[in-house]
Amino acid sequence: MDKQFSHVDERGRLRMVDISEKSPTQRRAVASCVVRTHVDITSLAAHASGVDPLHAARLAGIQAAKQTSSLIPLCHPLDLSDIHVEVTAGPSEVIVVATVAAMHRTGVEMEALTACAVAGLSVLNALVDADPGARMDDLVLLRKSGGKSGPWGRLVTSS
Amino acid sequence: MDKQFSHVDERGRLRMVDISEKSPTQRRAVASCVVRTHVDITSLAAHASGVDPLHAARLAGIQAAKQTSSLIPLCHPLDLSDIHVEVTAGPSEVIVVATVAAMHRTGVEMEALTACAVAGLSVLNALVDADPGARMDDLVLLRKSGGKSGPWGRLVTSS
Amino acid sequence: MDKQFSHVDERGRLRMVDISEKSPTQRRAVASCVVRTHVDITSLAAHASGVDPLHAARLAGIQAAKQTSSLIPLCHPLDLSDIHVEVTAGPSEVIVVATVAAMHRTGVEMEALTACAVAGLSVLNALVDADPGARMDDLVLLRKSGGKSGPWGRLVTSS
Amino acid sequence: MDKQFSHVDERGRLRMVDISEKSPTQRRAVASCVVRTHVDITSLAAHASGVDPLHAARLAGIQAAKQTSSLIPLCHPLDLSDIHVEVTAGPSEVIVVATVAAMHRTGVEMEALTACAVAGLSVLNALVDADPGARMDDLVLLRKSGGKSGPWGRLVTSS
Amino acid sequence: MDKQFSHVDERGRLRMVDISEKSPTQRRAVASCVVRTHVDITSLAAHASGVDPLHAARLAGIQAAKQTSSLIPLCHPLDLSDIHVEVTAGPSEVIVVATVAAMHRTGVEMEALTACAVAGLSVLNALVDADPGARMDDLVLLRKSGGKSGPWGRLVTSS
Amino acid sequence: MDKQFSHVDERGRLRMVDISEKSPTQRRAVASCVVRTHVDITSLAAHASGVDPLHAARLAGIQAAKQTSSLIPLCHPLDLSDIHVEVTAGPSEVIVVATVAAMHRTGVEMEALTACAVAGLSVLNALVDADPGARMDDLVLLRKSGGKSGPWGRLVTSS
Repeated sequence: MDKQFSHVDERGRLRMVDISEKSPTQRRAVASCVVRTHVDITSLAAHASGVDPLHAARLAGIQAAKQTSSLIPLCHPLDLSDIHVEVTAGPSEVIVVATVAAMHRTGVEMEALTACAVAGLSVLNALVDADPGARMDDLVLLRKSGGKSGPWGRLVTSS
Repeated sequence: MDKQFSHVDERGRLRMVDISEKSPTQRRAVASCVVRTHVDITSLAAHASGVDPLHAARLAGIQAAKQTSSLIPLCHPLDLSDIHVEVTAGPSEVIVVATVAAMHRTGVEMEALTACAVAGLSVLNALVDADPGARMDDLVLLRKSGGKSGPWGRLVTSS
Repeated sequence: MDKQFSHVDERGRLRMVDISEKSPTQRRAVASCVVRTHVDITSLAAHASGVDPLHAARLAGIQAAKQTSSLIPLCHPLDLSDIHVEVTAGPSEVIVVATVAAMHRTGVEMEALTACAVAGLSVLNALVDADPGARMDDLVLLRKSGGKSGPWGRLVTSS
Repeated sequence: MDKQFSHVDERGRLRMVDISEKSPTQRRAVASCVVRTHVDITSLAAHASGVDPLHAARLAGIQAAKQTSSLIPLCHPLDLSDIHVEVTAGPSEVIVVATVAAMHRTGVEMEALTACAVAGLSVLNALVDADPGARMDDLVLLRKSGGKSGPWGRLVTSS
Repeated sequence: MDKQFSHVDERGRLRMVDISEKSPTQRRAVASCVVRTHVDITSLAAHASGVDPLHAARLAGIQAAKQTSSLIPLCHPLDLSDIHVEVTAGPSEVIVVATVAAMHRTGVEMEALTACAVAGLSVLNALVDADPGARMDDLVLLRKSGGKSGPWGRLVTSS
Repeated sequence: MDKQFSHVDERGRLRMVDISEKSPTQRRAVASCVVRTHVDITSLAAHASGVDPLHAARLAGIQAAKQTSSLIPLCHPLDLSDIHVEVTAGPSEVIVVATVAAMHRTGVEMEALTACAVAGLSVLNALVDADPGARMDDLVLLRKSGGKSGPWGRLVTSS
């Protein structure tokens, strides 16, 4: 089981993974989440010039990706080469998809997940007065590439 | 509809709510989320002296609550008087509950939600190598009190 | 001359002003700046759905106002109750106006100026590839109110 | 026009430029700004041991350059290899010149401009009580080098 | 023993102290530390216009006091009303004394200690190439006032 | 003497060292400090499930190492590849040892010292109510490697 949890050292204590000896490779990760509400979001979006609350969420997600290592204790600081956050509104949900890339010694999964989570929080912030019961769900990694373990993708099956 | 979206001004543009004229009252909010994984977390917890990954998540959540206004563009900066984050592991899920309080002119809902989201991200970080498919769900406000609108609580019905 | 420079102590050294004994009053400050370029900004704005680069600048200005005390060494940290940033594009210039308010022991002039400066930097960022010679001018305080010294306004005369 | 605005994607939305495929080169940028006031700054400087307010501004500029990507939403985070900020006082103006360097995939223009802007804000902070009408002007890029587009310099002609 | 450790809850877990019900009082704390080196610091100070490395340390200490709650997990965020950092060089040591004040529900001991520690780190940074063996000692609270527990002062006896 | 103080330029002013022309090498630094108190810390540790206050200190040290360049004005921002903080309690003292690594153009001494200092502050925070006289001592660099100057180690002799 030791190998499973790379942040746990031989004495069972949390630690940052030492990546000093790794070579940089091109890393990319895509994550997503969804915000659900009973408020008609397309109406909100139309009212707000069609763009605003979703753009605030996009920018919040981009800015958060850069702060990942200061938010998550065992993440390495790293220079990201691309951050792209899509925020799309349907009638009663907002879907966030974030893509992050870096040439680095470690993966950027947490950066993509953090971008989604904070973009989603920003959407919740726009909704919380109108619908305090709004929720964020399905914050997951969709795929990643780069590094020794190679590409990985979530299996998606039609329902 | 204008009243529903307090962050949208009369011209449909996002803005921070002006709270200059409000009086401070005792505010409190409770939020939660859940991280789901196929990894046996209690085994991880036992392996890691029973506490560590969950404690890192607790501290990450506490620290994130303080950073809410720098993460969410339209949140007001505010001095929190209490932040409490519980992180509890079951066999295949981790439940996060965060309580935040402040004597202030605005609510602390976003601070509680942000604490949960970042604590959950920290749990995902501990799991992402072993289970890249781990997910965060059900990030919601449970209840809030203080302010003009009075107490609010999510209806929970037994299933 | 001692009285003129409140950040200089009796030995000629910089210091933060001690505001411990002051009573909080309602403070408000308005500042502005202008970004000048040979690029046709209205065309850029139209191209970009009419809103985007200017909205990024608005949000950057709002976020920067909250960071004033970590950017300017002798500014006090303070909880702002309102931040409003207007970014308006003409054919070859962008005008930024920021209003900031707080119930506090010290003024919010630097917060308004910082919001303008960083919103202006964000506009420059959108232009710098197309026009590396774009510039920011006229970063000034327009008016302020609250505190012992009372209201102050810049005299504006028609030209 | 698409090519002019590298932060706007094909659908007219702001985005960070993807620099994943670029090779690092030695980047350098120089920017400047000026703070104008009716206060006799050399007298202030003499009074304050000749150095202090200007040194605070230098350090504020250096620190701000490092925060550029957290202030400007679409800037990439990057490790700077040199930051140099000069702050020089004349009788009624303070001139700020900032030089920034990095071995990186993207330019450091915004870092140099941000260093100048925040150093200038720090000078304004020293002056704002004595002269609330003090202003910052002429925040511009002076020259840059490195990258595909090669060196660029502002033409300066005597007036 | 429970009462001794206010950050430990009834189940032996760390927690932030809930200060929601406390009334704000005038708080003040003074701390100090010393940096020891075999380098002749007064010579360095004289060389560097007599002020610079020590002024950088003063400003670093002031800025760090404002960041205390983001550095120390269980500290409350709070608006400081005064921060004063003295950095004095003798032949082979630098003495740092920091005073911090706030009108608040909790004490400012950690803010004063943090200001000293980071000012001391900044002094070490100036020395580390010339004397990698330089050290910081005696980081202690000297006195504090305000709050329910009343004033406290370290007993200092002549040796 | 000029050569001794790499942060002082030819005119005696502080400056960041320009590392643009240096090649990255594997850098590593180890530092330590000690917190002394009359409180029985092992008892506290036992009470708090044996781990908590020390783990909070570990995580605070790790997070602080990443913030070194925003805390210490003349430090370069850099991506760390490893941060390891040990916090060990004896009956009346807590010993902190921090190891930091990076592949970079400059050393990581200050990052290791900053990790120790902030971990030590976090320990002081746990003790300050029970023992306001608790102190931090002996914050020193133990050894470093990498870079032109080669390995260095503090001589330790038995007493």
